[in-house]
Amino acid sequence: MPIPDGRQRVVISGVRPEVGHGRFPVKRVVGEKVTVEADIFADGHDLLSCRLLHRQESENTWHETLMAPLVNDRWRGEFRVVALGTCLYTIKAWIDPFATWRHDLQLRKQAGQDLAVPLFTGSDLVEAAAGRAGDFDGPRLREWAGRLRGEGDQGRAYELALDPELSLLMGRSPDEELAAVYGRELPVTVDRERARFGAWYELFPRSCSPEPGRHGTFKDCEERLPYIADMGFDVVYLPPIHPIGRSFRKGRNNAPEAGPDDPGSPWAIGTAEEGGHKSIHPELGTIEDFRSFVKRAADLGLDVALDVAFQCSQDHPWVIEHPEWFRWRPDGTVQFAENPPKKYEDIYPFDFETGQWEPLWEELKSVVLFWVGEGVHILRVDNPHTKPFRFWEWLIREVKKEHPLTIFLSEAFTRPKVMQELARVGFTQSYTYFAWRNTKWDLTQYFTELSRGEGREYFRPSLWPNTPDILSEYLQYGGRPAFVIRLVLAATLGASYGIYGPAFELQENRALTPGSEEYLDSEKYQLRHWDLERPDSLRELIRLVNTIRRENPALQSDWSLRFLPIDNEQIIAYSKHEEEGENAVVVVVDLDPYHVQTGWLDLPLDHFGISPAEPYQLHDLLTGARYVAYGPRTFVRLDPHGAVAHLFRIRRRARTERDFDYYL
Amino acid sequence: MPIPDGRQRVVISGVRPEVGHGRFPVKRVVGEKVTVEADIFADGHDLLSCRLLHRQESENTWHETLMAPLVNDRWRGEFRVVALGTCLYTIKAWIDPFATWRHDLQLRKQAGQDLAVPLFTGSDLVEAAAGRAGDFDGPRLREWAGRLRGEGDQGRAYELALDPELSLLMGRSPDEELAAVYGRELPVTVDRERARFGAWYELFPRSCSPEPGRHGTFKDCEERLPYIADMGFDVVYLPPIHPIGRSFRKGRNNAPEAGPDDPGSPWAIGTAEEGGHKSIHPELGTIEDFRSFVKRAADLGLDVALDVAFQCSQDHPWVIEHPEWFRWRPDGTVQFAENPPKKYEDIYPFDFETGQWEPLWEELKSVVLFWVGEGVHILRVDNPHTKPFRFWEWLIREVKKEHPLTIFLSEAFTRPKVMQELARVGFTQSYTYFAWRNTKWDLTQYFTELSRGEGREYFRPSLWPNTPDILSEYLQYGGRPAFVIRLVLAATLGASYGIYGPAFELQENRALTPGSEEYLDSEKYQLRHWDLERPDSLRELIRLVNTIRRENPALQSDWSLRFLPIDNEQIIAYSKHEEEGENAVVVVVDLDPYHVQTGWLDLPLDHFGISPAEPYQLHDLLTGARYVAYGPRTFVRLDPHGAVAHLFRIRRRARTERDFDYYL
Repeated sequence: MPIPDGRQRVVISGVRPEVGHGRFPVKRVVGEKVTVEADIFADGHDLLSCRLLHRQESENTWHETLMAPLVNDRWRGEFRVVALGTCLYTIKAWIDPFATWRHDLQLRKQAGQDLAVPLFTGSDLVEAAAGRAGDFDGPRLREWAGRLRGEGDQGRAYELALDPELSLLMGRSPDEELAAVYGRELPVTVDRERARFGAWYELFPRSCSPEPGRHGTFKDCEERLPYIADMGFDVVYLPPIHPIGRSFRKGRNNAPEAGPDDPGSPWAIGTAEEGGHKSIHPELGTIEDFRSFVKRAADLGLDVALDVAFQCSQDHPWVIEHPEWFRWRPDGTVQFAENPPKKYEDIYPFDFETGQWEPLWEELKSVVLFWVGEGVHILRVDNPHTKPFRFWEWLIREVKKEHPLTIFLSEAFTRPKVMQELARVGFTQSYTYFAWRNTKWDLTQYFTELSRGEGREYFRPSLWPNTPDILSEYLQYGGRPAFVIRLVLAATLGASYGIYGPAFELQENRALTPGSEEYLDSEKYQLRHWDLERPDSLRELIRLVNTIRRENPALQSDWSLRFLPIDNEQIIAYSKHEEEGENAVVVVVDLDPYHVQTGWLDLPLDHFGISPAEPYQLHDLLTGARYVAYGPRTFVRLDPHGAVAHLFRIRRRARTERDFDYYL
Repeated sequence: MPIPDGRQRVVISGVRPEVGHGRFPVKRVVGEKVTVEADIFADGHDLLSCRLLHRQESENTWHETLMAPLVNDRWRGEFRVVALGTCLYTIKAWIDPFATWRHDLQLRKQAGQDLAVPLFTGSDLVEAAAGRAGDFDGPRLREWAGRLRGEGDQGRAYELALDPELSLLMGRSPDEELAAVYGRELPVTVDRERARFGAWYELFPRSCSPEPGRHGTFKDCEERLPYIADMGFDVVYLPPIHPIGRSFRKGRNNAPEAGPDDPGSPWAIGTAEEGGHKSIHPELGTIEDFRSFVKRAADLGLDVALDVAFQCSQDHPWVIEHPEWFRWRPDGTVQFAENPPKKYEDIYPFDFETGQWEPLWEELKSVVLFWVGEGVHILRVDNPHTKPFRFWEWLIREVKKEHPLTIFLSEAFTRPKVMQELARVGFTQSYTYFAWRNTKWDLTQYFTELSRGEGREYFRPSLWPNTPDILSEYLQYGGRPAFVIRLVLAATLGASYGIYGPAFELQENRALTPGSEEYLDSEKYQLRHWDLERPDSLRELIRLVNTIRRENPALQSDWSLRFLPIDNEQIIAYSKHEEEGENAVVVVVDLDPYHVQTGWLDLPLDHFGISPAEPYQLHDLLTGARYVAYGPRTFVRLDPHGAVAHLFRIRRRARTERDFDYYL
């Protein structure tokens, strides 16, 4: 073993956050902070100077910020990310002989020891710093070195040693020769705010026609946009808009054979005549119609999200042009999608183990870039867990390199480690198990893990009470209250959430068969006509909830989530607060869609900066009611057929100008 | 970003154990197992084959063992370390198309699907394996491929596909082309058993003379060895045996000036005439006397441990020969050891930041190698936390490369992170905070951390109730019961423990001053004469405890420690069991050295393989008493002036031949 540089004494380890030994980035949005901690120490008792270094990937020099000791050799520093793209951070630390000397000098003085020799030692340190300093600080440091040697006023040398100006000058010319630098430059992916906060609305263009029975078009969708924007959504997400294969086309309710007028599943992409992943299904319109739709959405403040479903119908042009991208069966047919014994004969998956994977990857990348070029900056990726992680890592990095605005949502409902890995390799957001978490215990466990666990650094949850594939038992049997409950939970537990509409606001709850989570008469296989004006629609409630989300920063991020004790297993309560501000909300939800439930809620008043004797307001943003309360215990009564949830804003009496709204 | 090999689909992450990103080794002794876990998964639903690879550092090829899935994509495998030195391990995993195919085939069969095409697919897989296999398996695999195509007996092709012989053959010729190999080869330091289990006895040779007032010699020490061996110790440890400096020599009770006959501190090493770290203090004898002492110890089964104190007295030859190894003060004197305002003027530390650090390191290594050459295979390192971590990492690795038997004990009583880092860089064992952990809460917290925390992979605790520097308040004020309590705790909580004798067995408890942990009339500064035959000596109890340790494998390792509930804060109870055997002990100790304490102990019977209705024995190995018990609840009464502790061996009725001793 060769002798390493033996004089280097500082250890930097246990750095957090650090994902996969630093291979994968942590995630932030522009303006957020990255708080970094590490164990930093050396042998002996010398004092250290520790710096957090950060830079944009494109910059050549580091910005430095001071780290401060916490306890037990743990140090902490932070910086704010200010630009989209990739940012890097690392840590540098060194032994600070001057600070150590100054500290020891004070102890010697207190013990009444002779300071003559120590002051000369200090003078030597200052002299050495003068040598390192430039023309500006150098002469001043030399002057200070002289003062410590007693030149001028010998009696004051001790006081001068503690002078802040000297510390400042010394801090500007540290001796970094033996500084330790952490061996890794850790990446941060910096996204736009929509990556953290947004409300999504999914709809099938095929059902957007106002006339029953006519296939919807992009023009119809365009007419639907004000309805969606009015409800306060931020993103409108469309299932695949490409030509739909005819071979093995599925009929209504997933029938093995389609009738002559059945439109088939939009996920069976491609026909020989109409094209594949860069083409538009003719019944929806033209690329110009699509552009007009995107523009109208943008005018209304809506992002458009498209579905990326990397698979083909048997009729897709690629099947003819690139047979080497598919797996072939011994009988000379292409291997269709299977999860034995289930068969999806209308869908051909790619063979990602093909020797021709490089052209395949490039072609798939070109698909994403095509739609990004059409102004689509959000991509909801279908079943990413059936394609290689390395492919996604490459694809997302390639796309975001040029288009850092792009958001990729992972639609992987699979094993936890696989979902986490997809987030690690680059997906901006991820679907969650939320649809199946309906009890207090389940919700508490799961959302504590998501908001507190180490995974929060890279896994951004997206909460969906329903999707075209998931009509949960809870919604099937819970009636309207179940929809309200799940809406409030999704919109307040998750800064990012979405619904599949109009099925959601119209409380569509008919399952294909008992025990199934598939919809009866699913839009996946047929057109549906929705009566948006039905009086029982949840449209107004959704608008209210989305408005509350926009007005309350506490609901716009996930990490502040804290579950609160309440003495009823059917009622869940939690709070969220603004990280750098005063906004705080408390959400109380009856999880039982059938019965009135009551309970005593314990509010952690100190958490909200409220003293025990101080009155405060619980302002229910859902009803407008205001309750003046004292002390931590509050009684709540929730009724599935009345107020099934409270969404309290906690209002303290004015203390600063920011509290002006106590009586508003 | 260049395209990585895109066909590689398997992820291996979250590998445990892994210390410091794999830079540092985990520790084992010969014969122990290394259990390795990792998250291993791929996209999709294909089945995986996962192997744990391991080899001696000197070997060129890996040994492979199968890993088995636990739950949630976590896999586990293990291997046994069989030779001293360094061993490496890593993980390899690949998608197993044959296992996946076989699994799917069964599902298809159950669903009544046509198997013709799938059987041909399987035949192709077998054919491909035949191509990879050698002359022996190749033809047999080709035969199997034919059978799957229905050659011979078409109706039986499905049953043949599930034939174990085919699986065996396929498992011998896997397709590893796209196998993932974990990116790190993780090291294991393999020590001899003494690294994990041993009882140490520290004594000052200077006080070994049977005649009061005469300086002890190695010959006297040799005469003392049977006394130590008889008590059942494994290691005899001597403070520094080198010439002691005369300048600034400390007098009795650490007086700033020594009297003419004061021997000084053995840690102030070196005189110009008598030499330094490779020399022997003339009053102790000659190198031949030392060799005779080491030989006699070996004959009695005792290892000799020496003190490595890398520092000098002012008179050390190195101060003259290598002034560049020391720090010089502006007044032209060498910088003595300081921890302001405390001064240790009899001791010069090295300047490890000297430009001449390489010759310094080499010289210090030569000191260790010198004593290793004299048959000393255990080194207790004084204050390692005041020398650079990199130095220790290098030194220990260099020494163990040639002498893998060598054990290094770190005497660092300092901040936790520093103690852990010393263990990470290579120290075999480490002193602990045990001396200051006296309450049930403290002991439970600390030993749960040591025995369960991730640090257990590299930090081997050594427990000392007293040392020449530490006479704890508990021992000062607790009388004889305190010594008994601390002995039993040390010897049963720690597989490695030690005492500083004869001060311990003679219950020396006089402190230098109130509030000090220093001994009055400490042997560090003067000779002491000890009356070993005093009737109140703990010698017999120590012999008994060490005998129990040797007879009960449960007490020879640390990881099985488990604290047991008992309803009295003054009584602590815990169990330990043999990892691969039936031996199990339960220790119950009264932590209050003043009063009788009673309590109800809850025994986790299932943990010991005892059913609730089954009688079992609590055999107190300290008294020989046996209690036949039923059920988990047991009443205990402990008396500081009688039985202050129970050390129960749990005896079940005979079930196997190994249980023969129930009635012994």
